[in-house]
Amino acid sequence: MVKTFHEVGKSRPLITAPYLVDGSAWYTADLRFPNALHCKVLRSHLPHAKIKNIDISKAEKLPGVMYVATHKDVPKVKFNISHHPGAIPKDEYVLSDRVRYVGDKVAAVAARDRDTAERALELIDIEYEELPSVFDPEKAMKPDAPRIHNNMEKNICTNFVNAWGDVEKGFKEADSIFEDEYYTQAAHPSPIEPHACISYYKSGKLEIWSSTQTPHRSLAKLSDIFGIPQSKIRIYQPYVGGGFGVKCDIILEPITAFLSLKTGAPVILELTREEVLTTTYSRHPSTTKLKIGVKKDGTITARQVKTVIDTGAYASQGPGVMAFMVYSCNSFTSLYKTPNLKIDGYCVYTNKPPAGAFRGYGNPQVAFAAESMLDTIARELGIDPIELRLKNVIQKGDIDPTTKFAIKSYGLQECAEKTARTIGWKEKRGNGGVGIKRRGLGTAWLMHCTGVHPVMDETCSSEVKMYSDGKISVIMSAPDIGQGIMTTTAQIAAEELGVPLEDVDITRADTIQPFDKGTYASGGLYITGESIRRATADVKTKLLNKAALELDARVESLQIENGKIKVKGTSKDVPISEIMKGVESGELIGKSTFVPISNAPNFGVVCAEVDVDVETGEVFPVKIVYAHDVGKAINPAIVKGQVESGIIQGIGFALTEDLIYDDKTGGILNPNFVDYKILTARDLPELVPIIVESQEPTGPYMAKGLGEAPIVAVAPAITNAIYDAVGVRIKKIPVSPEKLYQMISRKNT
Amino acid sequence: MVKTFHEVGKSRPLITAPYLVDGSAWYTADLRFPNALHCKVLRSHLPHAKIKNIDISKAEKLPGVMYVATHKDVPKVKFNISHHPGAIPKDEYVLSDRVRYVGDKVAAVAARDRDTAERALELIDIEYEELPSVFDPEKAMKPDAPRIHNNMEKNICTNFVNAWGDVEKGFKEADSIFEDEYYTQAAHPSPIEPHACISYYKSGKLEIWSSTQTPHRSLAKLSDIFGIPQSKIRIYQPYVGGGFGVKCDIILEPITAFLSLKTGAPVILELTREEVLTTTYSRHPSTTKLKIGVKKDGTITARQVKTVIDTGAYASQGPGVMAFMVYSCNSFTSLYKTPNLKIDGYCVYTNKPPAGAFRGYGNPQVAFAAESMLDTIARELGIDPIELRLKNVIQKGDIDPTTKFAIKSYGLQECAEKTARTIGWKEKRGNGGVGIKRRGLGTAWLMHCTGVHPVMDETCSSEVKMYSDGKISVIMSAPDIGQGIMTTTAQIAAEELGVPLEDVDITRADTIQPFDKGTYASGGLYITGESIRRATADVKTKLLNKAALELDARVESLQIENGKIKVKGTSKDVPISEIMKGVESGELIGKSTFVPISNAPNFGVVCAEVDVDVETGEVFPVKIVYAHDVGKAINPAIVKGQVESGIIQGIGFALTEDLIYDDKTGGILNPNFVDYKILTARDLPELVPIIVESQEPTGPYMAKGLGEAPIVAVAPAITNAIYDAVGVRIKKIPVSPEKLYQMISRKNT
Repeated sequence: MVKTFHEVGKSRPLITAPYLVDGSAWYTADLRFPNALHCKVLRSHLPHAKIKNIDISKAEKLPGVMYVATHKDVPKVKFNISHHPGAIPKDEYVLSDRVRYVGDKVAAVAARDRDTAERALELIDIEYEELPSVFDPEKAMKPDAPRIHNNMEKNICTNFVNAWGDVEKGFKEADSIFEDEYYTQAAHPSPIEPHACISYYKSGKLEIWSSTQTPHRSLAKLSDIFGIPQSKIRIYQPYVGGGFGVKCDIILEPITAFLSLKTGAPVILELTREEVLTTTYSRHPSTTKLKIGVKKDGTITARQVKTVIDTGAYASQGPGVMAFMVYSCNSFTSLYKTPNLKIDGYCVYTNKPPAGAFRGYGNPQVAFAAESMLDTIARELGIDPIELRLKNVIQKGDIDPTTKFAIKSYGLQECAEKTARTIGWKEKRGNGGVGIKRRGLGTAWLMHCTGVHPVMDETCSSEVKMYSDGKISVIMSAPDIGQGIMTTTAQIAAEELGVPLEDVDITRADTIQPFDKGTYASGGLYITGESIRRATADVKTKLLNKAALELDARVESLQIENGKIKVKGTSKDVPISEIMKGVESGELIGKSTFVPISNAPNFGVVCAEVDVDVETGEVFPVKIVYAHDVGKAINPAIVKGQVESGIIQGIGFALTEDLIYDDKTGGILNPNFVDYKILTARDLPELVPIIVESQEPTGPYMAKGLGEAPIVAVAPAITNAIYDAVGVRIKKIPVSPEKLYQMISRKNT
Repeated sequence: MVKTFHEVGKSRPLITAPYLVDGSAWYTADLRFPNALHCKVLRSHLPHAKIKNIDISKAEKLPGVMYVATHKDVPKVKFNISHHPGAIPKDEYVLSDRVRYVGDKVAAVAARDRDTAERALELIDIEYEELPSVFDPEKAMKPDAPRIHNNMEKNICTNFVNAWGDVEKGFKEADSIFEDEYYTQAAHPSPIEPHACISYYKSGKLEIWSSTQTPHRSLAKLSDIFGIPQSKIRIYQPYVGGGFGVKCDIILEPITAFLSLKTGAPVILELTREEVLTTTYSRHPSTTKLKIGVKKDGTITARQVKTVIDTGAYASQGPGVMAFMVYSCNSFTSLYKTPNLKIDGYCVYTNKPPAGAFRGYGNPQVAFAAESMLDTIARELGIDPIELRLKNVIQKGDIDPTTKFAIKSYGLQECAEKTARTIGWKEKRGNGGVGIKRRGLGTAWLMHCTGVHPVMDETCSSEVKMYSDGKISVIMSAPDIGQGIMTTTAQIAAEELGVPLEDVDITRADTIQPFDKGTYASGGLYITGESIRRATADVKTKLLNKAALELDARVESLQIENGKIKVKGTSKDVPISEIMKGVESGELIGKSTFVPISNAPNFGVVCAEVDVDVETGEVFPVKIVYAHDVGKAINPAIVKGQVESGIIQGIGFALTEDLIYDDKTGGILNPNFVDYKILTARDLPELVPIIVESQEPTGPYMAKGLGEAPIVAVAPAITNAIYDAVGVRIKKIPVSPEKLYQMISRKNT
């Protein structure tokens, strides 16, 4: 029997769409508060220095200036800004007497208006003692390199190692060994809404409105910094205009909270685009030395990885990203079966702007290296790249070597078949022509976890409230950051209860409502969605128990259809609202607290078709086919939106997006959307997202997560296609027309 | 063994005090919204008319005017604005084509600013068809009187009758029969914060910020009017600057919601003081014919009451007040044992501004009549008024004839003894002297229910959330309207959990949080307080269950002291925060849904000492002693504050507060604080509140309610004291110096 759904699997429009269109979705910076102060942050122009003296007397005298904060008066509490609760390096203060990158916080002003705050910054006199600095992570790891954090040997923030089998033995068993180095750059998440935060401390209570992905986790962090009980902190989530990971952290909260503590007024800080690009954390630049041993038939015998990621001046998400690269399922670890493996990962401090979480969280770096080398291996061995991958790839029922969970849902093979067929793999590949524009096809695959790992206690609690008119509100503690989770979870609740979507409202919870880990790690649908399904089931059970009495029927014989409770196989029914009239409090509340028991990896296959202009080095993506295994598409339109947005960011990662550091200062030279080039609608090729459903038994209605994966394998698919077109192997992204032209020229000479 | 408490019974300062002092307590009108519109209401200058024609074209053209609402476009749904859920007359529209009092709503404008909205009102042309009007309730009940609501015979909104025994027989058994008529005026609650409301309808969802006592109950009403599902309405409660009953109703919500529906913008309406005094409902003026039969020894044999209250143009709270007077425990029904009784109560429409809920809710009217007549009886029979009352008064264990509940806590005798002793009853009474200033003593007693009645389903739900640092937030759905319920419930939670008050935070819930009936009928502490106690006990149970495992001890052997969980009789303990670290979701949530099972009446005795200037008729209260039985004083300072504020309002009710109606139009002639005289600090006598604790077994920590009672018996105590001073019986309040001087003069001639 095929189970039919009335909401699940339907491409409902975003339930937030009307708010987004008519402007009534209030983002943090839209909010208005009486007597609010505006905050501006003074930032370092030096990459590394000690503040010997700071004179704020002139700034303080400027009319309208209410407070000037420096390292002298902030709490002497170190913290890590990331949402991770674990034992991670705590290396930041609200403000410090030392600056470690160009853009680092020096002081902050709260003033009656923004202009005054800005003018006050200019009136602060600082005497710096310059310190030697280092911008290259390899150099930073040398024993004589300048020490960026006093307690950190060789500037190594974390060094994680994962290994199994015997790599030496594995390489001996290989017929060929491939070895190469790959580099990925600092790309920036660049959500359209700049970071914004309003803090208001009044009489012992701290209230915060923030553009955040992790309100509940931010709460505990702020409690530690300021010594305010968690019960006296409340964090609201206005609408969030994109996150992509860079809004997991408490970047703005500590300084605004501190200024509000000092002034007793609401303090608003909204970053400029330049500040977003220089101070809110890019993807970690990575350098990966990869060595793979293979048999003649393409079977992998061993892999060895040394990867170095540059976390910039502060740890923030660096250890988390490193852990993902080394210990979680990805192209280094789990996607391809490898009997002997060693990964050695370094997360290194430099005097550059910090890196942090960005969609993919280490996986795009991993995939670029691994998927590029697989393409090289396939070509060297004369095996079709798809065949090579199919030979080595993990299978359904296999045990994931990192998590030790069995793979229970698996659509990878179907993804491969569908992308190949759609792009015309067999027909078109290797037929790039000889003209000015050469066409090429490339593929790259990926595996990505859903949620981090059960060991992280990724708890999600939800409540569903049924009102006396029988309609429900779902109270969702995980923020919708634009990805559509409010819509998919509303569909899940409507499906579970047996009512139309219009009868379901979703309320954006704040931290007084139940704990949710937050929106990250592709866990929104898989974890929060399942939690909401369970809370809805709970309210349904309570409702049906009451209806059973009314209808004089067994609970098991009841079902809900279109707002009515029916006795199956009879004509007896009663509207939900009728049953609710008899409920004393006028409402029923369903609850759940859910902790995932798996991290249900999702799989994807990208095939890219590109044109390369050999006279200019320009790359024109023509068509990207991307098949993604999502378990079950609760809302296919949202799934496709996620995949399409991932492709677009992936093209930018491959070809255009690049934060350029000043050689002398490590500062960012292009902190604006003219010089930092994200793709626009005009730049897009034909996008063909394909949904593959593999039925994940641990997910809500068999769904698993998706958010991060779509960016992961796009860049190597494109660079592999470039190779197919012009025979040039890109080992460093992004590849600009200039660089590609030079490479093509070198190859042809 | 005397149970000792660490928080209950302590006079903690208001936990809201810092917010109130530093201005960070945001009231509705303090809130700021982007693109907000200001609303102004056009009001009728006629007492009764049909709108034949209304031309808004000029107003609509005024730049800045966004919408002009008239009866033509509002929903054709009738409603009753009061919070009562039951079958009460629905006689109002958002806007109507008929006006029924001077001040009635005619049209409403939403404009970019307040001035423009006001100017637009002047541009609305209306053609009225005047209708005959009636201002006196007795005349309104005549068959030929103008009909104010078409379907209401003789303008009788409700006629309730309560009777037992045989009054005719009772009067025959009496040795003396006393018969008289008493009148009380329209006094106004006049909370310091004028009514304010902001509605914002966006894409199917209606959000409201309102100065309200009953957010959850308002929600269901608004859902009915606008056909918006309850799940799509959310009502927030900013700080409320006093309610006294007049903020139970949806006076501003419908019109602002309608304008927001039409404009899609937030719409703000803040009443002027004049509007508050003319359109937001006074105490019902009352005329009571009272007949009491007594034996020579003062034993009451029968009572007959006919009371008429004037509800003005709309029913609103009128039926509720009438029900209280006729069916609930008060001085007509339950305070004095009466074998034969009949009460006939009429709530009558007139073309005057509507009356509604005001502290005491009918009881001040009742008490004035009954307590005045008892004073007369005592004097006629030569019995001390205290003795007369003691002879007739209800006793502990008696069955309340209205509710049929046994009286389980009873401090009335103690109240009588303590007030008499403190005021010097025996020594001073009847010794007023013969000079220009004559001193007199009077007493009056009262009984008032706590919460309306269990039959009203006065549900209250609460949640208590314990964070990972072991501190708790109490989520309280009943609004603190300034009376201090946030403080007393925080003390209850701290006591129940065994932690200091500082470890407890109280959060003002909105309607997405659990249902609470609202703050009215003295039910805050008794109902919400017990609900919070139970929710705290729930979280404590969960915590101790976890601690028992950790401490390897039985749950029963554990107790919490000062944030630590101890094994009784040993030195083993563990901090709460330590146990919380092991909780997966990082939080524990306690819940309760509580429906009261009694209405635990409270009792009070007032003794007033006044000076009367016989040459001017001025009354100078000298000292008011007021003993009140509250079961248990959770926070004695708050109890005393309630009692003192009741005395002050009671003095105003007796002597100065009087809405004066224009004979010709029924309009209010003194809608301002110059001419409507509420007492100021300078006018106050010595106030001596006395707390009596009688241990109510159904209340939280043996407490019962208090809020309304303190105003109830003050006026008759003062007028009885005036009699003691100058031998003049006041049967109509307030008594002005002019009136009293005339009465004294008449008596002396």
